[in-house]
Amino acid sequence: MPGVLANDNYGKSAIRVVKVVREGARHTVHDLTVDVRCEGEFRAAHVDGDNAAVLPTDTMKNLVYALARQHDVHPLERFAALVGDRLLTESPRAMRVVVEIARHEWTRIDVEGRLHDTAFESGGTEMRIACAGSARGAPAATEAGVRDLVVLRTAGSAFSGFPRDAYTTLKETRDRIFCTSVSARWRYGEAPTDPDAAFGAVRQALLATFATHRSESVQHTLYAMGEAALGASDEADEIRLSLPNRHHLLVDLAAFGLDNPNEIFVPTREPYGLIEATVRRKG
Amino acid sequence: MPGVLANDNYGKSAIRVVKVVREGARHTVHDLTVDVRCEGEFRAAHVDGDNAAVLPTDTMKNLVYALARQHDVHPLERFAALVGDRLLTESPRAMRVVVEIARHEWTRIDVEGRLHDTAFESGGTEMRIACAGSARGAPAATEAGVRDLVVLRTAGSAFSGFPRDAYTTLKETRDRIFCTSVSARWRYGEAPTDPDAAFGAVRQALLATFATHRSESVQHTLYAMGEAALGASDEADEIRLSLPNRHHLLVDLAAFGLDNPNEIFVPTREPYGLIEATVRRKG
Amino acid sequence: MPGVLANDNYGKSAIRVVKVVREGARHTVHDLTVDVRCEGEFRAAHVDGDNAAVLPTDTMKNLVYALARQHDVHPLERFAALVGDRLLTESPRAMRVVVEIARHEWTRIDVEGRLHDTAFESGGTEMRIACAGSARGAPAATEAGVRDLVVLRTAGSAFSGFPRDAYTTLKETRDRIFCTSVSARWRYGEAPTDPDAAFGAVRQALLATFATHRSESVQHTLYAMGEAALGASDEADEIRLSLPNRHHLLVDLAAFGLDNPNEIFVPTREPYGLIEATVRRKG
Amino acid sequence: MPGVLANDNYGKSAIRVVKVVREGARHTVHDLTVDVRCEGEFRAAHVDGDNAAVLPTDTMKNLVYALARQHDVHPLERFAALVGDRLLTESPRAMRVVVEIARHEWTRIDVEGRLHDTAFESGGTEMRIACAGSARGAPAATEAGVRDLVVLRTAGSAFSGFPRDAYTTLKETRDRIFCTSVSARWRYGEAPTDPDAAFGAVRQALLATFATHRSESVQHTLYAMGEAALGASDEADEIRLSLPNRHHLLVDLAAFGLDNPNEIFVPTREPYGLIEATVRRKG
Repeated sequence: MPGVLANDNYGKSAIRVVKVVREGARHTVHDLTVDVRCEGEFRAAHVDGDNAAVLPTDTMKNLVYALARQHDVHPLERFAALVGDRLLTESPRAMRVVVEIARHEWTRIDVEGRLHDTAFESGGTEMRIACAGSARGAPAATEAGVRDLVVLRTAGSAFSGFPRDAYTTLKETRDRIFCTSVSARWRYGEAPTDPDAAFGAVRQALLATFATHRSESVQHTLYAMGEAALGASDEADEIRLSLPNRHHLLVDLAAFGLDNPNEIFVPTREPYGLIEATVRRKG
Repeated sequence: MPGVLANDNYGKSAIRVVKVVREGARHTVHDLTVDVRCEGEFRAAHVDGDNAAVLPTDTMKNLVYALARQHDVHPLERFAALVGDRLLTESPRAMRVVVEIARHEWTRIDVEGRLHDTAFESGGTEMRIACAGSARGAPAATEAGVRDLVVLRTAGSAFSGFPRDAYTTLKETRDRIFCTSVSARWRYGEAPTDPDAAFGAVRQALLATFATHRSESVQHTLYAMGEAALGASDEADEIRLSLPNRHHLLVDLAAFGLDNPNEIFVPTREPYGLIEATVRRKG
Repeated sequence: MPGVLANDNYGKSAIRVVKVVREGARHTVHDLTVDVRCEGEFRAAHVDGDNAAVLPTDTMKNLVYALARQHDVHPLERFAALVGDRLLTESPRAMRVVVEIARHEWTRIDVEGRLHDTAFESGGTEMRIACAGSARGAPAATEAGVRDLVVLRTAGSAFSGFPRDAYTTLKETRDRIFCTSVSARWRYGEAPTDPDAAFGAVRQALLATFATHRSESVQHTLYAMGEAALGASDEADEIRLSLPNRHHLLVDLAAFGLDNPNEIFVPTREPYGLIEATVRRKG
Repeated sequence: MPGVLANDNYGKSAIRVVKVVREGARHTVHDLTVDVRCEGEFRAAHVDGDNAAVLPTDTMKNLVYALARQHDVHPLERFAALVGDRLLTESPRAMRVVVEIARHEWTRIDVEGRLHDTAFESGGTEMRIACAGSARGAPAATEAGVRDLVVLRTAGSAFSGFPRDAYTTLKETRDRIFCTSVSARWRYGEAPTDPDAAFGAVRQALLATFATHRSESVQHTLYAMGEAALGASDEADEIRLSLPNRHHLLVDLAAFGLDNPNEIFVPTREPYGLIEATVRRKG
């Protein structure tokens, strides 16, 4: 046999669970997708086909259902840590467990000017993310984030002053559409006392900066969003942002005798620019 | 040759166009996907390979771009009719043109308690639909609709009293989650004077009825939604509803020593019930 | 109440079932997705919330599982008819049942030049379709088809001689890439004695005609494919084809000092032409 | 400003390019999706909005088109390295460039027993991957891989002997369906002299091992596949495998008076096990 096992992990992905919490007549829906992943001493399973240490991923799924029944699933970060800690207990050979939860939001339906107690509309594609990394004998690491937060601005976004080579045909512009699907993930140095407040502050900082920053490029605004996020939560010590550039191409209408003063655009899906960076707290 | 051409149509689908309308500092985004489809006398193209009558679908796309520059794209229903009428002019062999537009909504980003003039969040997956059928020498038919309006309710939904046969294992329930993605399409007897108002009234009637109806089944609530829609717009004379039942299965936690008083559910994607009906105005 | 129930149907969609048939050491995988849909007298459910006639869609799912255990699931057309007939028995108020089955193919893995008995690779996205319409007191109607049969040709495809108007910018071409995802559905006048042979003959006729037809347009080749299909199966009396035109745009490399003799293309997804027609057997 | 730029990268993703190579009457289609990503000294763009060093991602796209016209796009690994080297030249501030290419296969259509010269069917969802990492002043690193190679086996797959805790309900089995979508990525210690041969040997080793391994678990077979891959190519020094477990649940038919001797299964998409490991060459 020419090889050795260098590293490995396993777990269950896309565990769907909806918990309905009833406070009198008022219900709240917690709609979660949970991924769990274990690392540890599972060499015998790979090399020898010995499953004595392999807690089934089906058991992991059951554990998530049961814990969701027994405990609050919010704040998300705490439920993630709870699942991780419990898995370390159930699976003695696991040395590290990562639990990532994506939460789909439901907003109350407005009926005659009043938000309904038990009826909801989907909050769109945006997901709130919480991630807990539980290592045996060490404090859990906590991350939070957003995924698929799709935003667009129609003013104050430029891209000019870039180098031109033999393959450059792009025109400089001081006014373009800037559209992206924000994925952001930030790490808490210590677990925040109020995870929902911390999440809300960072999310709002990302949105407000996207909306108002005088943008010279995606990079420029991405970095400003990272700085704003760290400014919004003292507990966050690092944020990673991934911004796909959903290009909107200005249509050339000259062939039809028409001008196009930044008015008619074609949004495209392929190809797309992809800009990523990590901003870390100083010191 | 054993066959004859029985019927045919052709057109361009998924024409993406974003129009930015600027009223002073305040911008509005119209994000449309347009499908156009022509029927008419195109036998020679099929049978003889003679393209003399075949206006290219690329031309249809260009026409949509140009008309979007020259005209208001809202109300959606009027822009759809405009495109259809113009295509009848440009394509003399077309006898009927159907133009369907899906509008993706963008909502303004809230920055410090004020809705921003030029920055937007995606409004989710829900699409507003407008459809104009322009026939040569006849008034255009107008339809409106919604697609992917995803809603969920946690109370007041039952399913019981159904027949049981040898293959029935489903339990009766007086309290279940009812989740669906509403597709609705209604036909206007005459074009509404205020299409936006008519659309808004029907959409709100659908939502409010979904939220508040004492539901004995998906069929029962679907029908009530159809009645409410016709009640909300005098111009609508027929509505077709398609409600996939996004089942949420109650998890059996007994093996873990836990009860589950309608609290923990697993949402599933496959299989799904699909309930469809058309409600027509009396007389 | 302003409305009346004009028509309605309900059923279960996306019932997934995999049947493993073992003939000695050699296994065969039948991987099916079944949709069933009932029409009939279900007014009381809609209007009165009375479910006495509403066979649950969950029961329909169970029925499919049980019948798959008890009967051959191939030929596909016969299994579809069997499910439909049985549903008419189980659901006395149903007047018509439509059962549509999509079959996903698995091909045997080649191990050292020999096709393996029990290991398979996915056959791609193409699906074989069978559809049975069972009406109470009438013979079942049978359809067959293919979905997502993706094909591409690099020679012998032209588009020229089309009309030009003020919005036409497309260049004429005698040599373009022609790429499409074939959806075809044909109706059998009477159920074929050998449904697999009939399906194979029609599918091969579609492929061979796509490959070899001197194409003046998508319409031209679509029609030839329809004629060839009717020629390949005496039992088929009508075929409907839907061919999205997956445009491949020739890249303009002149800015880089390069020509592009029909060599470098960009495939696009939006927008796309959509060409549809029905070819019917003469007489 | 509380933060500093910790790391960053940018580039263009999903650059689609189809190259038609003509050798006499026989054409070959190279259908590629290219992602390029640059790392380097781009701090000024992020922090100061200074784009002087930011080669536009649009230029990267143009470069790929032009190089595809001027050079062979196969073997894939060499074209990836060519694009990377050229980007290092065009972008002086880039210190490292990663170029990843996914190739979609097209197989020739069989017409009357002969493979056609210019007509093709899609080869399904499987993609061949090549990845070149070009660092300034260092040799390029080369990786190859497959993505979405979907396979299924109906015999010789077990899962038993696993630990049971309070949350374990899974039954032991010596005979289950094992279905997965193989993603594999292997690193070449030195660039192989014949990349196509190396790729083919590794892919076949993965398939044959999947088909024939006496599987005690996904982990067990994954590891065997990794060993077989390293055995099949001397140039490969490490392989990473990611195997989602596409569970096929045995249907309980007892309620209908039927047994189910491993015959009727429901394939599910959510949740799924995910097993990942890296196997490295010894020494």
